Amino acid sequence: MYISETKIRVRYSETDQMGYVYYGNYPAFYEVGRTEALRQMGTSYDALEKGGVMMPVASLSIKYVKPAKYDDLLTIKTIVKELPRMRMFFTYEVYNEAGELLNNGETVLAFIDMKRNRPVPCPEWLLEIFEKNMNK
Amino acid sequence: MYISETKIRVRYSETDQMGYVYYGNYPAFYEVGRTEALRQMGTSYDALEKGGVMMPVASLSIKYVKPAKYDDLLTIKTIVKELPRMRMFFTYEVYNEAGELLNNGETVLAFIDMKRNRPVPCPEWLLEIFEKNMNK
Amino acid sequence: MYISETKIRVRYSETDQMGYVYYGNYPAFYEVGRTEALRQMGTSYDALEKGGVMMPVASLSIKYVKPAKYDDLLTIKTIVKELPRMRMFFTYEVYNEAGELLNNGETVLAFIDMKRNRPVPCPEWLLEIFEKNMNK
Amino acid sequence: MYISETKIRVRYSETDQMGYVYYGNYPAFYEVGRTEALRQMGTSYDALEKGGVMMPVASLSIKYVKPAKYDDLLTIKTIVKELPRMRMFFTYEVYNEAGELLNNGETVLAFIDMKRNRPVPCPEWLLEIFEKNMNK
Repeated sequence: MYISETKIRVRYSETDQMGYVYYGNYPAFYEVGRTEALRQMGTSYDALEKGGVMMPVASLSIKYVKPAKYDDLLTIKTIVKELPRMRMFFTYEVYNEAGELLNNGETVLAFIDMKRNRPVPCPEWLLEIFEKNMNK
Repeated sequence: MYISETKIRVRYSETDQMGYVYYGNYPAFYEVGRTEALRQMGTSYDALEKGGVMMPVASLSIKYVKPAKYDDLLTIKTIVKELPRMRMFFTYEVYNEAGELLNNGETVLAFIDMKRNRPVPCPEWLLEIFEKNMNK
Repeated sequence: MYISETKIRVRYSETDQMGYVYYGNYPAFYEVGRTEALRQMGTSYDALEKGGVMMPVASLSIKYVKPAKYDDLLTIKTIVKELPRMRMFFTYEVYNEAGELLNNGETVLAFIDMKRNRPVPCPEWLLEIFEKNMNK
Repeated sequence: MYISETKIRVRYSETDQMGYVYYGNYPAFYEVGRTEALRQMGTSYDALEKGGVMMPVASLSIKYVKPAKYDDLLTIKTIVKELPRMRMFFTYEVYNEAGELLNNGETVLAFIDMKRNRPVPCPEWLLEIFEKNMNK
């Protein structure tokens, strides 16, 4: 298991007229969590795309528990529980400054060879990075 | 069962560097579907909020099948399968102009009394509208 | 002069906690106006990009007069006053259903040859389309 | 004059199919700059709204020089050149990690008494905070 944490300060643009963060903003927050998880492991999603592999999202689920508000400092916890093969699973937990769980979710991502536009297994070099970090 | 359809033309702002609609835009598209479903039934979500009841999203799930592209004209199919009580279920299907399914999903929404900030059952007047439309 | 009109229904995701459309959403609405202007002239921005020319925005200005609200049906008026050479000027006016001006703005766009990543004049074929439509 | 700096890491959701940050995202980035400027002065925009005064944007202008890309770490420089009276002026400069200017812009904001929905001068307590910080 690998757990990564990153902070997001809620922007005014992310609120809606209920006075809360719009429910459709969390997928972008989860992506920030993924991006930072890869960076903390010593690589980057950008490097992956530049190497010709992209990771589109195959499925998403979110359970909303409490709302976030403007200017809240959120903690995005990104969790990798198992090594990816054809697909990669991330789970997420979003907390406010009081440590309350606001929502949690999961995404499944595929690996796509951008030249051939076809699914491929997780590249070896990336798998090694995951193995090294998950065995820590 | 009540089925409603509405069209969304993909905006440039909704694409990402993969050249596809960003996966995090679909929750907003689903909300457009809900809004139009209520309008087609003869009411509006706006009227509901002005009447003191809001409907925050309790959970969301999406299964992504194919990507949408800039300027695609999408059809959002919004389906209400059962009458709401404490919670309301919507399912969604998004199609491109070729009639291909791009993604499908589900949301569960609560009814919240905005003054007391507490869950309430679906208001009677709204339930009657659903009943009338679903028995058509 | 060429004037095009298109409608945008305000989405819940586009509101902020003031209860109005977030000021940062109008650049995307203006882009919808540009896209529809080109379509109404018989071409498309998509065709332009597929032909190897993109039109990044060089400058933007907006004067906000009145706010728009959730579910408002806005009219975006897009105006081309002069033929483009190296740069193309669009002006925009956004109205609500009561015919009140909500905001107006201007963008200046460049033509970029995507292969060489360099500014070029407006392609001849596009200029002809503008000429034909502006002399109507 | 008061100058504040804050960092924004470009999110995948903020790119478009050109491979750059969508031009319509900068108004939200500028707002992050304003929010952080107020925080660095020892107050917050949130406190202002909770005190019954909101600051809608009256006008916006942006000059785009170079594009930002996914995962770029941007510096938002927010500059207050003069004390606000009925209106407040902010200017912004956005730089990439190489120190290159990507764009610069300006916003003019009004002060609105939220109860009466009418323009008011900058509240005294806020003016004192600006005075204290600008004379540093």
